[in-house]
Amino acid sequence: MSPGTTLARIRERKPLVHQITNYVVMNETANATLALGALPVMAHAREEVEEMVGLAGALVINIGTLSPPWVEAMLLAGKRANELGIPVVVDPVGAGATTYRTETARLLLDEVEVTVLRGNAGEIATLVGVEAEVRGVESIAAGSDPAALARAAAEALGVVASVTGPIDHVSDGTEVLRVANGHELLATVSGSGCMSTAITGCFLAVKPEAALEAAAEALATFGVAGEDAAAQARGPGSFHAALYDALYNLEPATLDERSKLVAQSHKVG
Amino acid sequence: MSPGTTLARIRERKPLVHQITNYVVMNETANATLALGALPVMAHAREEVEEMVGLAGALVINIGTLSPPWVEAMLLAGKRANELGIPVVVDPVGAGATTYRTETARLLLDEVEVTVLRGNAGEIATLVGVEAEVRGVESIAAGSDPAALARAAAEALGVVASVTGPIDHVSDGTEVLRVANGHELLATVSGSGCMSTAITGCFLAVKPEAALEAAAEALATFGVAGEDAAAQARGPGSFHAALYDALYNLEPATLDERSKLVAQSHKVG
Amino acid sequence: MSPGTTLARIRERKPLVHQITNYVVMNETANATLALGALPVMAHAREEVEEMVGLAGALVINIGTLSPPWVEAMLLAGKRANELGIPVVVDPVGAGATTYRTETARLLLDEVEVTVLRGNAGEIATLVGVEAEVRGVESIAAGSDPAALARAAAEALGVVASVTGPIDHVSDGTEVLRVANGHELLATVSGSGCMSTAITGCFLAVKPEAALEAAAEALATFGVAGEDAAAQARGPGSFHAALYDALYNLEPATLDERSKLVAQSHKVG
Repeated sequence: MSPGTTLARIRERKPLVHQITNYVVMNETANATLALGALPVMAHAREEVEEMVGLAGALVINIGTLSPPWVEAMLLAGKRANELGIPVVVDPVGAGATTYRTETARLLLDEVEVTVLRGNAGEIATLVGVEAEVRGVESIAAGSDPAALARAAAEALGVVASVTGPIDHVSDGTEVLRVANGHELLATVSGSGCMSTAITGCFLAVKPEAALEAAAEALATFGVAGEDAAAQARGPGSFHAALYDALYNLEPATLDERSKLVAQSHKVG
Repeated sequence: MSPGTTLARIRERKPLVHQITNYVVMNETANATLALGALPVMAHAREEVEEMVGLAGALVINIGTLSPPWVEAMLLAGKRANELGIPVVVDPVGAGATTYRTETARLLLDEVEVTVLRGNAGEIATLVGVEAEVRGVESIAAGSDPAALARAAAEALGVVASVTGPIDHVSDGTEVLRVANGHELLATVSGSGCMSTAITGCFLAVKPEAALEAAAEALATFGVAGEDAAAQARGPGSFHAALYDALYNLEPATLDERSKLVAQSHKVG
Repeated sequence: MSPGTTLARIRERKPLVHQITNYVVMNETANATLALGALPVMAHAREEVEEMVGLAGALVINIGTLSPPWVEAMLLAGKRANELGIPVVVDPVGAGATTYRTETARLLLDEVEVTVLRGNAGEIATLVGVEAEVRGVESIAAGSDPAALARAAAEALGVVASVTGPIDHVSDGTEVLRVANGHELLATVSGSGCMSTAITGCFLAVKPEAALEAAAEALATFGVAGEDAAAQARGPGSFHAALYDALYNLEPATLDERSKLVAQSHKVG
């Protein structure tokens, strides 16, 4: 695994990443995508999502501010992406907080072949039926073993599960990759989780054949950028601006040096 | 009154603040809420607003970019908040500019028991039937006595009226609290008024028993943060980023020292 | 032509600029409008757009995140603006990427008398029937002569065509104005094109009698601000914040000195 090599590929190919995401973070995920070196496009009308996803290297679906027309568009785009072999990332924002969010996330998982499911521990736990405490869109606690959670979610849901937190864990149901990059200031910026999902889409777009690695590399990249941004920051506002600078300025070689992405033990039994 | 004590309580309890707000400022009010130390959640679908508000410590309704499905959700969430005893803040953005906004603001005030109404002088004047000049969402002029306007609005509408401007005035119809913090750069950032409304929600969430004080303390806090941000700023962009830094770094003791929140004379006759 | 004189007029008159724009950039175009010295208002409900546009000095329509209710509102507002003699700017974001966007842009051009059409080369080429490569909302290539494209679009569509790129070209079908300001970091911030459209609206609002000049002056102003911002920036995030600072601090005299706005040769034959 080399996040730097994949990052260099993103900058060379500039994949289009179609994002059907929430109102709160649209600008943020678009800017994170651009700063990284890919091209974002936001489109949510049922009149155009199938055509738009056909132009894209990856589809990102984020349920952060749902309503029925958007769910319909997510399903249309997701199914079309599946037909075309385009990878799909789903971010189940707030699953567990309301029935509507939990059911929509489940509907997406049922109707669309999801490549990567990227969420916090509470959201992912909800979707595999584990008890979790979710407050709004924040996960407060979800058991003690995120590696086991990632693996269980990947197995149960047939996805690569990307569970983010102080330490991130990404699993395909067999292997678990562990990413120890990042900074606590990320939690002070609205949409940082959504940005990590968008960046996961960018990595998948150029490495669709290895979704487990792509998802983990994306988190390592975002985490290292967060570390760089924190070094410039006096608080959440200056950190937020510095985060785009850091994504833009991140050198592949530096990224590989600083990436704390390791394979955890394989599944036993 | 001690804004610092209430701020410390927000950071300790991290209340969830449910915001049904406008597209322009969603990211800004979410980030202001997070920077202060509370947890924002945005949800607007009729399918989930009643469930979501049940998880929250306060509900913030902002009519800045209205359409009928959103109005329906605002009413549902507001009524449910009332049933549960959760405080409700309404920001009547642009009331007076169009009939639709004025009527929606009145509808909310009629159908929902609103705890705090936070607006500029033109918006508030419109809602108590005083002539006001409103340009789009900016209040240009609304008579000469904002303290009297706040008191009259509170009396007529049965709310705590929080009228912001160069000097802010908050009244429950009897007392008037005056807040002289803030900086002119706040007016150069879109959504600064909406942020003050969101922060009012955060303060109400931890001090629901004293809405008049909570609303005034919120404005003092936001104003002091604005002063701190201005000291770092070269214009609206750097001010905007510095504003989140300032909210995040604001120390309760410093806030209390610098707060210019005073009780004005009681109502006479 | 003097962009500085028009900028000074904007700051003096503070025109209201009604924007029906996309979810991704609403905050950005509102902040650019405010930083420049005008007043933004976003309103998209069919219930109020005709009334709101009647208060405005210009209407900005941007199709970046379309859906049918928004298209309906755009048509209503555009027709009302025409009745009232209020200038209309259209930004055909992503025309050429999907049929829905191309057809909506054409519908707007058919049903509304558009004063200025502001887009990148791919979008504009699509609308005059020239082959263009459009990826999502990015124009990759659209032939070799943007001046000819601007002139052809202006003639064919009966608008002032404002074609932005490394060098911008604005034409009324006869004259072509060339603007060589700007900085490559503008392309790293989502919504910079949309901001230039919003600023075009601000300039038109105070110079409606000379749309060709107003459109070019707007681009020179935005370009010079981009140059100032780049001098402060370490990447897209700090550039973005500095861009608002630069718009706010731009002195009319400095703007006129640094503006690279020139008339290109008149149409020959």
